[in-house]
Amino acid sequence: MNLSHIEHLGIAVKSIEESLPYYEGVLGLKCYNIEEVADQKVKTAFLRVGQTKIELLEATSPDSTIAKFIEKRGEGIHHIAFAVPNTDEALQEVSEKGVQLIDKHSRKGAEGLNIGFLHPKSTLGVLTELCDNRDVK
Amino acid sequence: MNLSHIEHLGIAVKSIEESLPYYEGVLGLKCYNIEEVADQKVKTAFLRVGQTKIELLEATSPDSTIAKFIEKRGEGIHHIAFAVPNTDEALQEVSEKGVQLIDKHSRKGAEGLNIGFLHPKSTLGVLTELCDNRDVK
Repeated sequence: MNLSHIEHLGIAVKSIEESLPYYEGVLGLKCYNIEEVADQKVKTAFLRVGQTKIELLEATSPDSTIAKFIEKRGEGIHHIAFAVPNTDEALQEVSEKGVQLIDKHSRKGAEGLNIGFLHPKSTLGVLTELCDNRDVK
Repeated sequence: MNLSHIEHLGIAVKSIEESLPYYEGVLGLKCYNIEEVADQKVKTAFLRVGQTKIELLEATSPDSTIAKFIEKRGEGIHHIAFAVPNTDEALQEVSEKGVQLIDKHSRKGAEGLNIGFLHPKSTLGVLTELCDNRDVK
């Protein structure tokens, strides 16, 4: 397994619009992209800090996993995403080591990344994503 | 405000010893330091991934904030720490912008860093630390 860096941190927020004054105005980061990921029922906003992106996640439907997360735990850090050279190979490797997967094969996420999630039952409570940007131009 | 990168991510675990097989054996990271921070009643283990460290946090006492966090929410991501040039100046700057502070002035954290925490009520539910390594040799 070769994790090069933390690609992004997903943070669940009630409202991207109401969160940006903190991330931009207080922390001084800059939102460079807002994108809707229809199949995940979320709107995402991206801000870069060093090698890592902060991905703000706002539910676009009450049955979005982000809406359920906020209902249960409040706003806060939702997941961590590690950059790997090849998501499918990495998913297979961790699966062979006994990790339970949410995604057996990679799928498309925000910003064109190939993504796959590991189950937090196998990752000490940390919802963990592996991702690569091989198809991103 | 000038955040250069995510210095570390604090992750609450029940047992560092029982967590390392996942972080080292599955994810392929390497623990390079284990340290006890007596005044925070935690034992910490550090693993590097790119610019960022994963800081595993194990309570050394039942009244540690980490023990209480796990009791309430289970194991998982506890806080995010951004690197700044000068923690005291950064704390003052965010305070003037209306952020509630846990630490009005910096104090010493693990690895000799000067650290200060912002209150999650002011940071959209994300326990946030600012830190600098000015005194680290």
